[in-house]
Amino acid sequence: MSTAVGSEMYQWATDLFPICRSITGNGVRQTLAYLSKLMPGLTVHEVPSGTPAFDWTVPKEWNVRGAYIEDERGRRIVDFARNNLHLVGYSEPVDRWLTLEELQPHLHSLPEQPYAIPYVTSYYDGRWGFCLTQEQRDQLPPGRYHAVVDSTLAPGSLTYGELIIPGKEEKEIFLSTYICHPSMANNELSGPVVTTALARWITSLADRRFTYRIIFIPETIGSIVYLSAHLDEMKRNTIAGFVVSCVGDDRAYSLLHSRSGDTLADRVATAVMKHHAPDHIEYSYLDRGSDERQYGSPGVDLPVVSIMRTKYNSYPEYHTSLDDLTLITPAGLQGGYDAIRKSIELLEHNHAYKTTTLCEPQLGKRGLYPTLSTKGSAAAVRAMMNVLAYSDGTRDLADIAQHIDLNPTEAIEIAEQLAQKGLLSRA
Amino acid sequence: MSTAVGSEMYQWATDLFPICRSITGNGVRQTLAYLSKLMPGLTVHEVPSGTPAFDWTVPKEWNVRGAYIEDERGRRIVDFARNNLHLVGYSEPVDRWLTLEELQPHLHSLPEQPYAIPYVTSYYDGRWGFCLTQEQRDQLPPGRYHAVVDSTLAPGSLTYGELIIPGKEEKEIFLSTYICHPSMANNELSGPVVTTALARWITSLADRRFTYRIIFIPETIGSIVYLSAHLDEMKRNTIAGFVVSCVGDDRAYSLLHSRSGDTLADRVATAVMKHHAPDHIEYSYLDRGSDERQYGSPGVDLPVVSIMRTKYNSYPEYHTSLDDLTLITPAGLQGGYDAIRKSIELLEHNHAYKTTTLCEPQLGKRGLYPTLSTKGSAAAVRAMMNVLAYSDGTRDLADIAQHIDLNPTEAIEIAEQLAQKGLLSRA
Amino acid sequence: MSTAVGSEMYQWATDLFPICRSITGNGVRQTLAYLSKLMPGLTVHEVPSGTPAFDWTVPKEWNVRGAYIEDERGRRIVDFARNNLHLVGYSEPVDRWLTLEELQPHLHSLPEQPYAIPYVTSYYDGRWGFCLTQEQRDQLPPGRYHAVVDSTLAPGSLTYGELIIPGKEEKEIFLSTYICHPSMANNELSGPVVTTALARWITSLADRRFTYRIIFIPETIGSIVYLSAHLDEMKRNTIAGFVVSCVGDDRAYSLLHSRSGDTLADRVATAVMKHHAPDHIEYSYLDRGSDERQYGSPGVDLPVVSIMRTKYNSYPEYHTSLDDLTLITPAGLQGGYDAIRKSIELLEHNHAYKTTTLCEPQLGKRGLYPTLSTKGSAAAVRAMMNVLAYSDGTRDLADIAQHIDLNPTEAIEIAEQLAQKGLLSRA
Repeated sequence: MSTAVGSEMYQWATDLFPICRSITGNGVRQTLAYLSKLMPGLTVHEVPSGTPAFDWTVPKEWNVRGAYIEDERGRRIVDFARNNLHLVGYSEPVDRWLTLEELQPHLHSLPEQPYAIPYVTSYYDGRWGFCLTQEQRDQLPPGRYHAVVDSTLAPGSLTYGELIIPGKEEKEIFLSTYICHPSMANNELSGPVVTTALARWITSLADRRFTYRIIFIPETIGSIVYLSAHLDEMKRNTIAGFVVSCVGDDRAYSLLHSRSGDTLADRVATAVMKHHAPDHIEYSYLDRGSDERQYGSPGVDLPVVSIMRTKYNSYPEYHTSLDDLTLITPAGLQGGYDAIRKSIELLEHNHAYKTTTLCEPQLGKRGLYPTLSTKGSAAAVRAMMNVLAYSDGTRDLADIAQHIDLNPTEAIEIAEQLAQKGLLSRA
Repeated sequence: MSTAVGSEMYQWATDLFPICRSITGNGVRQTLAYLSKLMPGLTVHEVPSGTPAFDWTVPKEWNVRGAYIEDERGRRIVDFARNNLHLVGYSEPVDRWLTLEELQPHLHSLPEQPYAIPYVTSYYDGRWGFCLTQEQRDQLPPGRYHAVVDSTLAPGSLTYGELIIPGKEEKEIFLSTYICHPSMANNELSGPVVTTALARWITSLADRRFTYRIIFIPETIGSIVYLSAHLDEMKRNTIAGFVVSCVGDDRAYSLLHSRSGDTLADRVATAVMKHHAPDHIEYSYLDRGSDERQYGSPGVDLPVVSIMRTKYNSYPEYHTSLDDLTLITPAGLQGGYDAIRKSIELLEHNHAYKTTTLCEPQLGKRGLYPTLSTKGSAAAVRAMMNVLAYSDGTRDLADIAQHIDLNPTEAIEIAEQLAQKGLLSRA
Repeated sequence: MSTAVGSEMYQWATDLFPICRSITGNGVRQTLAYLSKLMPGLTVHEVPSGTPAFDWTVPKEWNVRGAYIEDERGRRIVDFARNNLHLVGYSEPVDRWLTLEELQPHLHSLPEQPYAIPYVTSYYDGRWGFCLTQEQRDQLPPGRYHAVVDSTLAPGSLTYGELIIPGKEEKEIFLSTYICHPSMANNELSGPVVTTALARWITSLADRRFTYRIIFIPETIGSIVYLSAHLDEMKRNTIAGFVVSCVGDDRAYSLLHSRSGDTLADRVATAVMKHHAPDHIEYSYLDRGSDERQYGSPGVDLPVVSIMRTKYNSYPEYHTSLDDLTLITPAGLQGGYDAIRKSIELLEHNHAYKTTTLCEPQLGKRGLYPTLSTKGSAAAVRAMMNVLAYSDGTRDLADIAQHIDLNPTEAIEIAEQLAQKGLLSRA
């Protein structure tokens, strides 16, 4: 696969980095406007505050014009304009003078990561607060401070993006990524930019078999809102889905399984990851933390897994200002993109085949034997014989590739070559 | 759980220790008379000698007035009155003078445990014999010895105790323990005293769901006799059962599985033992040795496991005079009691639940989120979310606790709290 | 089992060693003529060249009168008469003078095994060639060489042997071995001689339960040809089968499983090998290389495994002149014979039994308890109780032996003794 897309994705992440996103508000709209240019079919939806969604209700919309803490001499010691992580997400408006002692309960920092600004939100309680480095906090002199949050928290709407790419079949592959964090890279922007690149590649596929449902939503409330409106059709049509999150750094690969652990999505991702990243980390549904929490919940039960680079909650920069553009790389994004793309390619070609002859066919008379016998050619013949041996109509290519320990990409090539030669037919 | 019951059980064992029990006879009756005072509902049954029971027949009843070996000077060198292990169980009457050489085939000792009197029986052959320490045996001088066994082996009956504690449902939980060994502690008295304490606790349960069938029988012949009279109703009603044996020392925990290994009793005991004693030893049915041999036999197939402390046959004092009151402790008995009681508690509450909402519910609006976020509270929320995530109506709490690695006691609490808040309903 | 058969088999292999076999031709006929004397019922079949068999066609028949390379002084430096491995199998006739340089592409040797003549064939391309040691090849001086292959490659037939030994039941056990390699011992003659010894033993069984289908065929094309004519009846009747190959050296034991891995043949062979050769190597169907490739192919799906000593392709002498009569031994052949014979014995006695009593039977009253209690007798009683405990009508002896870790030979003895005593009946 071309590695150019890695650099392209990194550029998009760079462009989107400064925007202050939350689960609602104009930051989401700006982000979707940017992505719409890359995916002309993307539609933007607004769900009004107060709309019920299963056990939840769409919250008020939050927007921020500015927020800062000034000292008595008018110096802005903490300023949302410099880093949007400084403001606790969903902070209520405030304009107050406080002593340092009075201010402290509104401050958040990380004693064990003194140079990191933590990411803190308080969506469902009426609060305000500021986040700063422990190092800065420790140096605040006693005195009076002016805390200003110029925010609005008012009826509005929850905004999300949706792209439906039709295929030959009604059956769908589902991609879900979130847009709801301010300036963070791996645990925010890697998801939408990899999903965008995947959407562009899917759109370009001439012989696309499946329909694709791709959504850009705020985490948790967004997936709940989306499911509450689309669950029936998704349950009817979804054959496999992927939560696209934390796909930007270049340290590890991770595969988080569905609740049952044996859906088509699990089987395909397992077959792909075994070869794409043999040393990837396997996580069970017990380790879930993103929108798979909703997709796998009882009664929803969609076949959704998450292929990641380094998983949320498992790297030190997670949910801090250190999760910035230096943490993700073009190669990291490319690797995440490739892993999910290979999974989609396997899904698109994942037929169960049956041999058309009894016993092994004579490869030689069909020119399928390499004329020059080398170590590589022996492995190729072995792979071909194994694809034939297990094509009994009961196993799809994902199963066969897994069982015979073959790279799924090669399994697809071999099966299509054998089908073309008349030795395999679709079961 | 209160630890007072440990001391209480130890006292009962101390009281019962001197009685000479065997598979029949007055020792069993004395033991049951003592236990009846602790369990007023206990009924005592007598099954006449000669009664057929499947492939077996109730043997003659054995009673002993006295037994000893005197030397030529009339000194009682071995005396049943000093330790009832000195007499081989079911010894026929004898009153004979023998040379040391003639006496030797009637003596039993343990060369490798020179200070232990072995426990030996000969229920179904006409024999007599004495057991003594190797140390004493080695010092017997040549000469003539007077062996006297003043026993009766005559038609009588086999005696057992039965306690039925009715519950709201006909379905039964079964407890089986044995009373058939003379003065031994872990491999005899621990079983009946723990079973008695459990029976007293079960009787005290106001909202008891199941009916309890609790029997105190001689090992092997007793369970065969009991099954031959009650198999149909037990097969119809028993949901889980426990052989209560070797539950008194404080060294190890053991779980011996049923023949199939996957009955409700296995699943419940596995979930409990994982947390009650994470380092317990797992035994398969191939390691069986007590009445589970009958309960798990083909065609009987009752769902019975055995939760033990240190298993019979696996500790050096087993079946010797060293298995005495110093081997068991109040804490040891308490631990055995607690493990089985927790299993019963899980059975009583082991419903399969379904979530009442789609997607994760909003815990916050129901006050289920801890207001102060601490490490412990995060684990509590995680446990709650996991109980919800796996409550899909197909798994009972035993399965869920096992799968999400949660202490079943906590799983019960969480499920009942969620049910009370309307978030779970019984499937 | 008598070890005399090992020496007998070794003698047969010695007699058959010099014959030049290939997938067709007079070497196969000579070999079958020799074996016919040992197995009077063996029938020899000829299938004409050009006969279609699934995806294949019976090739022309190949025979060799002689073949050599002479140098300019008329010295035969390589001569088929000295070792038939010197000639590439299915070499076309040739009579040509060539320079060393022109000769080189027709020579085959093994740089890493300089003293071994490799075994090379070219059945389906029109080629000729000679095989020699690397050591000899390196010493060939420049000059002109006279290459002569006096062979015929012409319409004829493919020859195979078949022996049907009828039993009380129509159901069949299948043995397949190959006759198609020139002078090699483990990977050729061990198969037919062990199969012959097994056939003679099977013929001698008075109370033979199953029918036996035993074939001596050229590898690959032979099994394909045979299956194309007998597949329906074999699918209907075959309960288990064995490819008999590489059963002559005394270094290792190997068990190669069927494609599904859980057929009766797999279960029986697993139970036998666990005790016959606890350190045997387990191979999956992915390691297949002989006629199990056909027997296990989709749509054929016969329950066939391969019990071997050191597996083809996994020992250094394989497919070279070093796989000679020094590589196999009477003890090696005997071990291979014994392993397959024990598997057949288990199949013949592999009933599912049910206990006739509920609960454990009283062994004592039937004389089944050893009167002298020893360590060995305790194990014997344990084995007997375990056979009873698992005889619930759902498990055959292969399953039970495997589960209770008992030598299948002992399991058969115990089950038959218990059946005779009326404690077990066939399910």
